[in-house]
Amino acid sequence: MTLPGSRRLTLKEATAHLASQPFSVLLGTRLVSFSPDRTILEVDAREDLLQQNGFLHGGVLAYAADNALTYAGGAALGPAVLTGGMSIEYLRPALGITLRATARVRHAGKRRTTCACDLEMIDETGQVRLCAVAQGTVHPV
Amino acid sequence: MTLPGSRRLTLKEATAHLASQPFSVLLGTRLVSFSPDRTILEVDAREDLLQQNGFLHGGVLAYAADNALTYAGGAALGPAVLTGGMSIEYLRPALGITLRATARVRHAGKRRTTCACDLEMIDETGQVRLCAVAQGTVHPV
Amino acid sequence: MTLPGSRRLTLKEATAHLASQPFSVLLGTRLVSFSPDRTILEVDAREDLLQQNGFLHGGVLAYAADNALTYAGGAALGPAVLTGGMSIEYLRPALGITLRATARVRHAGKRRTTCACDLEMIDETGQVRLCAVAQGTVHPV
Amino acid sequence: MTLPGSRRLTLKEATAHLASQPFSVLLGTRLVSFSPDRTILEVDAREDLLQQNGFLHGGVLAYAADNALTYAGGAALGPAVLTGGMSIEYLRPALGITLRATARVRHAGKRRTTCACDLEMIDETGQVRLCAVAQGTVHPV
Repeated sequence: MTLPGSRRLTLKEATAHLASQPFSVLLGTRLVSFSPDRTILEVDAREDLLQQNGFLHGGVLAYAADNALTYAGGAALGPAVLTGGMSIEYLRPALGITLRATARVRHAGKRRTTCACDLEMIDETGQVRLCAVAQGTVHPV
Repeated sequence: MTLPGSRRLTLKEATAHLASQPFSVLLGTRLVSFSPDRTILEVDAREDLLQQNGFLHGGVLAYAADNALTYAGGAALGPAVLTGGMSIEYLRPALGITLRATARVRHAGKRRTTCACDLEMIDETGQVRLCAVAQGTVHPV
Repeated sequence: MTLPGSRRLTLKEATAHLASQPFSVLLGTRLVSFSPDRTILEVDAREDLLQQNGFLHGGVLAYAADNALTYAGGAALGPAVLTGGMSIEYLRPALGITLRATARVRHAGKRRTTCACDLEMIDETGQVRLCAVAQGTVHPV
Repeated sequence: MTLPGSRRLTLKEATAHLASQPFSVLLGTRLVSFSPDRTILEVDAREDLLQQNGFLHGGVLAYAADNALTYAGGAALGPAVLTGGMSIEYLRPALGITLRATARVRHAGKRRTTCACDLEMIDETGQVRLCAVAQGTVHPV
């Protein structure tokens, strides 16, 4: 992705950026938190985002990990970044009403920032379960 | 995912399975090829699947990798499988009209199958460019 | 690896196990901590473990990550486990006198445990720097 | 790693470079092939490189993957490169007399080259078995 604007983005600017991604709009992704060392995205487990057994599709978790890692890297590296790659491990079926992807910077270098992301499902009682973990790298464009 | 039915799935059965994934229906994913050692999925680069610069969103590539790896594993392992995890590297901006995800079995074990996936974009002239590569593991449920 | 003996290993048993790995003996690996949710291995940055610029070779970090993940999984899963795979990201040149690999269980399932590992270098002043991060899966044999 | 010298390295130069890595000397690694799109390293399964069951230690495979990926990237990117990270999946116990790591460039960009590596064991009858697969990224220093 490319984050336009000033070197250090505000939550408002990052929210506007997310709104400029048609695919994130399609999925209804919300930017809940955005700071230099932590980004939180949320996606509601709408019916059209599920797989055949009623769980949130693994591809939605992979999308959320990819995007949260990118924004976390953008918060650290500045306006124009892209995700180089990531690794994701699925731990449990993603059952619940909302997916929360929390990405943190593990190391910010000039040319490469490495981030980790926890993917949790929140159910209707408020219980939170870790469903996948990811790590990836973000680069300046 | 869980692939219902007989141990060795036909293309028709696998296509019906894909149609039972609401998220795959939302994205318009097509199962183009399905055999014991190779699965091909395609996703058209519709406007609502793009990111802010007009490229196919990285999350769509991650979804396609995840799903192609799962179907490739299902073709090898049998009806009921899930993807354990994957690693994806992005090589180029995903520009073109159709994404083609080709997954192959690298090793089929009883309890774990390892697959690789190439993610290519096909443009309007028919030119094919490798845009990402992935590898992952698939397990019986 | 295969961890022989009782289901829950003691530090002493795990130390004996490590001593039965010729490659770990060659590298001088020490098991510093071993509990159900955390394993710490250390490797001194001997001259014969370096790469051409005087840093600890990336392959030593990869070895330490692999082995720490396995022991962390063994502490959670029981005596007989093997590592299915891992992903490692290098953050900084590994400069210092001792490598410390700290692996933690992120999720312990019956058939697959997912662990994360931080790889830190300790220098002669005691300063600790994170040099690589890894995550991987461990399975019963 | 840093590959000194001219932009396009010869096999002889790359061999000299490998000889400047104390850890590769300790393991007895040989550079068998070195060209812009393919690098082959070999490591004999000496007794001191095994794990407790007589298989080549997973850490040796991880080292060989890391190093083969780096040399493959160096052959494509030029003299001064380092490996950013990699993902490795273990497929089978590494039984045999020689490990052969064959790394290929999947995409060479200016700032990042992505490579894949097959890790095979050759037994005393000459039979070759794929034991692990890896992919990773290499960057200019």
